[in-house]
Amino acid sequence: MAQTRRQFLRQVGITGGAGVMYSTMSALGLTSAAETPAYAAPSRVELAGRGTKHVVILGAGIAGLTSAYELLKAGYKVTLLEARKRPGGRNWTVRGGTEETDLAGNTQRATFSKGQYMNAGPARIPQHHVTLDYCRELGVAIEPFVNQNADAYLYREGSTALSNKPIRHRTAKADTYGYVSELLAKATDQGALDSYLTATDKQALIGFLTSFGSIGDKSSGFKYTGTDGRRGYDVEPGAGLEGGTTAAPYALSDVFASGVGNYFSFEFGWDQAMMMFQPVGGMDRIPYAFEQAIGREKIQYGAEVLGLRNTSAGVEITYTTGARPRVLTADFAICSLPPHIAAKIPSNLPADIITALQYARPTNAGKLGIEYGRRWWEEDLRIYGGITNSNLDTVNTWYPSYGFHGKRGTVISYYNTGANANTYGALTPAARLDRAVAQGTKIHGDVYGKDIEATFSVNWLGTKYSEASWISWPSQTDGVYAKLLDATGNIYFAGDHLSHAIAWQHGAMTSARATVTALHSRVASK
Amino acid sequence: MAQTRRQFLRQVGITGGAGVMYSTMSALGLTSAAETPAYAAPSRVELAGRGTKHVVILGAGIAGLTSAYELLKAGYKVTLLEARKRPGGRNWTVRGGTEETDLAGNTQRATFSKGQYMNAGPARIPQHHVTLDYCRELGVAIEPFVNQNADAYLYREGSTALSNKPIRHRTAKADTYGYVSELLAKATDQGALDSYLTATDKQALIGFLTSFGSIGDKSSGFKYTGTDGRRGYDVEPGAGLEGGTTAAPYALSDVFASGVGNYFSFEFGWDQAMMMFQPVGGMDRIPYAFEQAIGREKIQYGAEVLGLRNTSAGVEITYTTGARPRVLTADFAICSLPPHIAAKIPSNLPADIITALQYARPTNAGKLGIEYGRRWWEEDLRIYGGITNSNLDTVNTWYPSYGFHGKRGTVISYYNTGANANTYGALTPAARLDRAVAQGTKIHGDVYGKDIEATFSVNWLGTKYSEASWISWPSQTDGVYAKLLDATGNIYFAGDHLSHAIAWQHGAMTSARATVTALHSRVASK
Repeated sequence: MAQTRRQFLRQVGITGGAGVMYSTMSALGLTSAAETPAYAAPSRVELAGRGTKHVVILGAGIAGLTSAYELLKAGYKVTLLEARKRPGGRNWTVRGGTEETDLAGNTQRATFSKGQYMNAGPARIPQHHVTLDYCRELGVAIEPFVNQNADAYLYREGSTALSNKPIRHRTAKADTYGYVSELLAKATDQGALDSYLTATDKQALIGFLTSFGSIGDKSSGFKYTGTDGRRGYDVEPGAGLEGGTTAAPYALSDVFASGVGNYFSFEFGWDQAMMMFQPVGGMDRIPYAFEQAIGREKIQYGAEVLGLRNTSAGVEITYTTGARPRVLTADFAICSLPPHIAAKIPSNLPADIITALQYARPTNAGKLGIEYGRRWWEEDLRIYGGITNSNLDTVNTWYPSYGFHGKRGTVISYYNTGANANTYGALTPAARLDRAVAQGTKIHGDVYGKDIEATFSVNWLGTKYSEASWISWPSQTDGVYAKLLDATGNIYFAGDHLSHAIAWQHGAMTSARATVTALHSRVASK
Repeated sequence: MAQTRRQFLRQVGITGGAGVMYSTMSALGLTSAAETPAYAAPSRVELAGRGTKHVVILGAGIAGLTSAYELLKAGYKVTLLEARKRPGGRNWTVRGGTEETDLAGNTQRATFSKGQYMNAGPARIPQHHVTLDYCRELGVAIEPFVNQNADAYLYREGSTALSNKPIRHRTAKADTYGYVSELLAKATDQGALDSYLTATDKQALIGFLTSFGSIGDKSSGFKYTGTDGRRGYDVEPGAGLEGGTTAAPYALSDVFASGVGNYFSFEFGWDQAMMMFQPVGGMDRIPYAFEQAIGREKIQYGAEVLGLRNTSAGVEITYTTGARPRVLTADFAICSLPPHIAAKIPSNLPADIITALQYARPTNAGKLGIEYGRRWWEEDLRIYGGITNSNLDTVNTWYPSYGFHGKRGTVISYYNTGANANTYGALTPAARLDRAVAQGTKIHGDVYGKDIEATFSVNWLGTKYSEASWISWPSQTDGVYAKLLDATGNIYFAGDHLSHAIAWQHGAMTSARATVTALHSRVASK
């Protein structure tokens, strides 16, 4: 019987891995969307006559949920053990009623209004991430996430001419690109780059710069004057004779001294360039959709893992949901817990595997959500979503990408990482708010401290069961990390930390797919 | 009795015009959102004891609707005469059931599925346009319009190395910015720009270029290598050891010869930079919300104006809704018809006013909407909204900004202007589709011609009652245009053509506001 192309690909995927499968798909002309890793879910067909294998999955974060969901496609029996009372792990949407006590003992109970929320963990999805494929497959509605907005601000505290005042992204870009174009056109025209450019190159380059920087022609010295409106207007073009009043551009030295241009490249990043998306109603729509697809009854919430052992027959997991420890045996385990937490669980894992788990370096990130009773950023500042970036310790302020024109709105007052996150994390939630409002007021004025209706902050390093926003590896090529990619006996690992998309759900999902593919390949080939 | 600040501003607005009001608001510290023109609606208070004036408005497009809506705030009696059977004018959303016969006799009846639509006229709203203020005021829900997408394509037919293949925006940008940065860093470092830059400038500039272009340091000759993922991957970073496989950047000469970079500045424009918005469900949600706010009974649809006269008592308008002409008298008229159409209406307007109306130069634009039964641009190409730009006669292809992940989707196969619009406009709708599919196939492959479920095209120059997509003026400063800004007797004019935001609803709205302000000021001061 002839194989279908899909069956053939699945077989290639199982035996050759994603790399080989990708090449095969390429050869078959199937990869016009080349960037997304190829994957074929395991199928019951390949398990015919082999009995049902039971896989226990530690952690119902994105990697654990993805693993369970994919294994169920081939009829595996799955059990998920999750320490929290909800699915998603760091994919966590805080709404009115959400209560959390951190490791420092701070208890917060969110009082956000109906419809208002903050995504405390992941909050944006690039269009090429498999996260969107799962949204489609699971029926999770999506909407744009505003990751770039010409009218959001750049703010640099300091002593340069452009310091200590909010500058719209569009203004910073227009002036920077204008001066870059003027300078490069001059140098090119004067022959300074003749050893790198042909006459044809020079002509094409100057043509590009004229458009890119909106600069004058050679007779003007390719002068940038900032009069085309890109940088914004003091008075907008309107009715009758109002053609718009522009202000003079900032001076060249001031623009480059300010450092505002150093933010631009954020928007070019593989994972950050627009378009970006978010689930309608909160990022946790993804884990809850997984939970529904998997079956609520397969997930044991409130289950802390106390022990993990390879046995001759499979695996043995000890866990507790309260007082009395329970023991669960199964054929395989997939451990999707954060590596630095998995390392602390009593187990019979060999020393080099424990060492590899301990090799992970926890990183911190913090967020503070402020619900305002008035969308002053839209009404007063005409900023509809997007990010204001500063060199203050708050670093990034996000205006909401949902509820445009509504009565209320929830701003992410800070999204910061590393030392800045630790600075805020060391404070009480009330002190975090005070500090963030003082910083935000520098940028936005007194409006920033008014009409505050509810707040909630997260400090990931101090958050139970995560103890990090994400981890980093000293190396992913020196062989230590690689030990976690293969099964150790009947125990597999999965998680964004086992990918090159760390801190993204895409990393957790592709890792889970790789782990499921490896496990299934082993079962199907026996 | 002390004036409220709002009353004071209204008075300033009436007597001094928007410019003075703006300065006054500035002085009062009210213009943190400086760009939007100040406006205070007319109020009944100012008309106390003066009786009710009746204003007939010719045209229920955006300018006419805005005029009526604002006049009603002060209690004027308004009557709208509209030749079409619907409000909005060029603000026209085509859905299943929409039927239209153009001036060449082509009749189309759209068969788009439920929920699918194309905005044949205006389709996007910048966040600083007053159009959004009306959406808020009228309760029209908005959502992002994808005007920029790093994963949409640039396509240049021709004979350069980069011709005849789709190139993602992100790739074109990464390579262009990389080479620009490499070249300018070299020139700067070599002292070629020392007469324009201080040592401090040079250091800051090179710092910026390092980030902006992702280039190497001085020891590498500031070399751009394109390995940071901004330009995209052949294989995306994923699980395990897959760090992503990048292709080498295109060669410098090829990048600049291709002309792909000449599109970038579109995205920096005052009116085009993200974020952009659209009403949920179609742009005509705006005119229908106006209709509801104004009152359906105040609008006479199917009314073609046959005559327009100033009289000693006011105005006299002759119109027909079929056979027998009717005469309507009122105190004032606001003519919001396209100027080249208004010029043809029999009237007693003086010759210099007719000449001014005739001074307008009609422009063409065309659009073709194709509903596909599969969202192949999302599923196969991972393009979620945005614009593919080419040098083909189709010019711009828009992927839909609504219905992400749905079963169906409606692509704007072409949005072109001028000669390209005329080329398509001269064809039958069926021939337009054939030509557009042939062009789109060059960029997207055979998928472009498959799963087509419904189509509709518009050729604005050949569209009854509009006869242009918009107009342009040979000059807006030579005194001819300006004649239409003042009342001619009791007749006023309004429309986007009487603004510096031509072709935008913002222009129509700000013009209407200016006209209403002038009319009201006259009435209130008598």
